[in-house]
Amino acid sequence: MYGVAVAETAISRIAADGSLSYRGYAIKDLFERASFEECAFLILEGHLPNREELDTFVSGLHSRRKVPKNVYRLMEELPPTSDPMDILRTAVSGVGAAEALLPAKEQEYSLIAKMPTLVANCCRIVRGMDAVEPRDDVNEAENLLHMLTGRRPDSFEVWAFERELILYLEHDLNASTFTVRVVASTLADVYAASTAGIAALKGPLHGGANEASMRMMLEIGSPEGAMPYLKEKLSQGRKIMGFGHRIYKTVDPRAQLSKDMLKRLLAHKGGDGRLYRVAEELERAMWELKRIPANLDFYAAPVFYALSIPIEAYTPIFAASRSVGWVSHFNEQLAANKLFRPDSIYVGQHELTYVPVEQR
Amino acid sequence: MYGVAVAETAISRIAADGSLSYRGYAIKDLFERASFEECAFLILEGHLPNREELDTFVSGLHSRRKVPKNVYRLMEELPPTSDPMDILRTAVSGVGAAEALLPAKEQEYSLIAKMPTLVANCCRIVRGMDAVEPRDDVNEAENLLHMLTGRRPDSFEVWAFERELILYLEHDLNASTFTVRVVASTLADVYAASTAGIAALKGPLHGGANEASMRMMLEIGSPEGAMPYLKEKLSQGRKIMGFGHRIYKTVDPRAQLSKDMLKRLLAHKGGDGRLYRVAEELERAMWELKRIPANLDFYAAPVFYALSIPIEAYTPIFAASRSVGWVSHFNEQLAANKLFRPDSIYVGQHELTYVPVEQR
Repeated sequence: MYGVAVAETAISRIAADGSLSYRGYAIKDLFERASFEECAFLILEGHLPNREELDTFVSGLHSRRKVPKNVYRLMEELPPTSDPMDILRTAVSGVGAAEALLPAKEQEYSLIAKMPTLVANCCRIVRGMDAVEPRDDVNEAENLLHMLTGRRPDSFEVWAFERELILYLEHDLNASTFTVRVVASTLADVYAASTAGIAALKGPLHGGANEASMRMMLEIGSPEGAMPYLKEKLSQGRKIMGFGHRIYKTVDPRAQLSKDMLKRLLAHKGGDGRLYRVAEELERAMWELKRIPANLDFYAAPVFYALSIPIEAYTPIFAASRSVGWVSHFNEQLAANKLFRPDSIYVGQHELTYVPVEQR
Repeated sequence: MYGVAVAETAISRIAADGSLSYRGYAIKDLFERASFEECAFLILEGHLPNREELDTFVSGLHSRRKVPKNVYRLMEELPPTSDPMDILRTAVSGVGAAEALLPAKEQEYSLIAKMPTLVANCCRIVRGMDAVEPRDDVNEAENLLHMLTGRRPDSFEVWAFERELILYLEHDLNASTFTVRVVASTLADVYAASTAGIAALKGPLHGGANEASMRMMLEIGSPEGAMPYLKEKLSQGRKIMGFGHRIYKTVDPRAQLSKDMLKRLLAHKGGDGRLYRVAEELERAMWELKRIPANLDFYAAPVFYALSIPIEAYTPIFAASRSVGWVSHFNEQLAANKLFRPDSIYVGQHELTYVPVEQR
């Protein structure tokens, strides 16, 4: 289905020159100047909020952050070895069962508000810890970062994390968003659609790449190790995660914004910047060897790592942010809905006749 | 996406004349002569099983029917008002979390074997009853019918129910199966894909139609009521559930097989056949008014009703049977995988510039 246009959209645009915009605003502009909440409102409602709209939106999210206790008990029934994305998918599905009769708009806001809380806790429960409660006095980025790390981040860390969340908000018809639209087209509710989106995001070809990228960087450890590592893996026919994109063939603009953020964050932290040098050399070597550019997942991963976020939370964080894009696409699908029911080309057998089992 | 071919398939075929076949065998042939287990094996493996293959397949299903206790406890955490499809989706997601590290083939057989048990119990838990355990000495149809109704069905009832399960097994790229293939294309596991399939099947435009059809027939109550009911609803612009199909424009062959089964089942039961006459008159009147044919959901519903199956179980039963088709499409997708990543047509705004909130 590459190259087949299956929907009209006014939510985001990836232009032929590789530039990305949300609702007409260049991602670079939003990355440098906007808040996560402003961008989320923009994606959901189609325009940047004025002060009153923004305050209403923010307080609406704050008041819906808490997750019912029965959802934590439900998560506790899953084995301690469970994948955080499986836990998150089950928990979101469970919240959806409890909220199935709420008005659609209420479901949407509740989902977006609760995703960070569920993300923080799906990782904690894997580690055998008690549930952590959200704060209602800080923004989305600070709340999630605090829940994930258990410590109060400084304002630069919050700002850096918020930039990454903005980059993950929305990206046209990627596989999870497309899944959401297909489910939406059956007139199932937004929780059904988002549960399916999380299911798609678990796939290593989609959301799983940021975690795989980080483990690779840690395994390599030094800039000198990058080229030999890539040569060995490529000679074995292995896929290198965090590189390449369906659309961006020379540069992923989100990756470059994230790369710059990594440099600044490491400088802020005062270390030797080795992680940046490993990542940069990997990027350079991969381009030299294969002409494949680093993607967002590749450079978001070390930013999360520098913020002391557990690696298994990286894909769930992607889900928490992308849920905004999912909800927006869910609504756009319903506004001019037609059931997704594509055709297939039949290549199987014809006109066989049943014979009883004893005659086979 | 109507009319766009997005995959090659050898699993089922809906020919231009409206005939349906599974792996080259006409649905009518299988409906009259085959067992559910034979058809499931056929769909999964591509050929009808010999005796040894069938015995191995059947015992493999029997031994995997039981659902771990923690999954029942997980279901109990959902509110008593929950929709059975939401419970089923959450439970399947939870089983998937527990089985994420099993080999793919083991996951597939476990999923198919456990679906009926989960279906029977998602409805019981809604009604506040204890979990019912599967039997391991009877076929799929008898086991599920027994669990759903709490009584031992007679052999004709089992046979009738089995026919309906065969009709629901597989149907090319319907919305849930297409969802499964999109999720599979990210390399997520079969539980992730099937959870997404259940999410899609919840939609009233897809799986929910059999329940809506039954409630309509009960509301109408007599053949004379059919035409006035349809005229009133149609004049209000309401959609009549159980009619129409993306592909079958004059007759759904599965509906006609199911209609015949309804007649025979009601005769077997010895009632006055009123339910058949209501359904038949509804079908006739709808064709007269709108030239839209009854679909499978329309005639499966009264068969389930005549078997004393609770109405809220109808869509979950659809899911239990269709999970076989989902697994087969999951594997077919992976055998020649390419990530589903369609394009969109951007119709939104361009080149806007961010201004701070106080200036908006």
